[in-house]
Amino acid sequence: MSAPDLPELDHAALAALAARVGELCRAAGLSIALGESCTGGLVGHLLTEVPGASDYLRGGVVAYADGAKVALLDVPAVTIAEHGAVSAQVAIAMAAGARTRLGADVGAAVTGIAGPGGGSVQKPVGSTYVAVADGAGSVVRRYLWHGDRSANKTASARATLELLLERLGGGT
Amino acid sequence: MSAPDLPELDHAALAALAARVGELCRAAGLSIALGESCTGGLVGHLLTEVPGASDYLRGGVVAYADGAKVALLDVPAVTIAEHGAVSAQVAIAMAAGARTRLGADVGAAVTGIAGPGGGSVQKPVGSTYVAVADGAGSVVRRYLWHGDRSANKTASARATLELLLERLGGGT
Repeated sequence: MSAPDLPELDHAALAALAARVGELCRAAGLSIALGESCTGGLVGHLLTEVPGASDYLRGGVVAYADGAKVALLDVPAVTIAEHGAVSAQVAIAMAAGARTRLGADVGAAVTGIAGPGGGSVQKPVGSTYVAVADGAGSVVRRYLWHGDRSANKTASARATLELLLERLGGGT
Repeated sequence: MSAPDLPELDHAALAALAARVGELCRAAGLSIALGESCTGGLVGHLLTEVPGASDYLRGGVVAYADGAKVALLDVPAVTIAEHGAVSAQVAIAMAAGARTRLGADVGAAVTGIAGPGGGSVQKPVGSTYVAVADGAGSVVRRYLWHGDRSANKTASARATLELLLERLGGGT
């Protein structure tokens, strides 16, 4: 693998993103829910560093095992079988499932291969899909990170917060 | 509030705890699941910093809203109404629910008041309950942290990992 080429992702920058998500949720009166795979809970951790996050964050599901994606986020097993757990289709289903299961206005989800294991030719380590779903539909983005496991998780969490910000009208 | 009296909780120490949980899960052939409230996903984040965590971590539920505790972790609404969301009874129910819902051998859960808001005379900011449930029953512990929001979250995550370690036979 190539050397990490990610910029330094300091905690202050991530905390600022999380705080901005909170401001926009309050301004718009919207609630959010999360479906996390490769990040393992990091997106929720960052959002809950903000005091008062319980006012807009309903919660999330850390769906590490495929069975958890099916049982707790209503991702169709056939979607996982056909496209793989790390796919645009599954990311969208996770975001929609988080939204529905937690009764939130907006759902955000992330699924990827943090590494060092689990990669393939078609989907190398670092492959990550981030999705946001709301009542109007969904958007999904694909990324390929080149860091180590921890850096890939952090980059995936940042991308999730950024897509959420865009959906909330805050841009990045 | 008094000044924070917590020891410095550096990332390396937390990562070592998470790695030790992983070693014990592998040695015993046990899977684990999480129910997190005040930590917002931090326990899952720490456990998934360990490469190969997907071998034993099924996933978790970040049940920030009371409704999420009921809907995704099967915490009885009457238990929350009678004892409060931050209580030994709810912590145990969350651990048992995480275990059952995610089909894991051991469930670990944490519920607390990270602050700065949400405290009361009976349950001041920093009040935290950590529980572990398995097929043989459950254990629960109460803590009172005196840090700021972020320090309280970190201390709660550490206590959750430590109780999990004890249940897995690793002590701390």
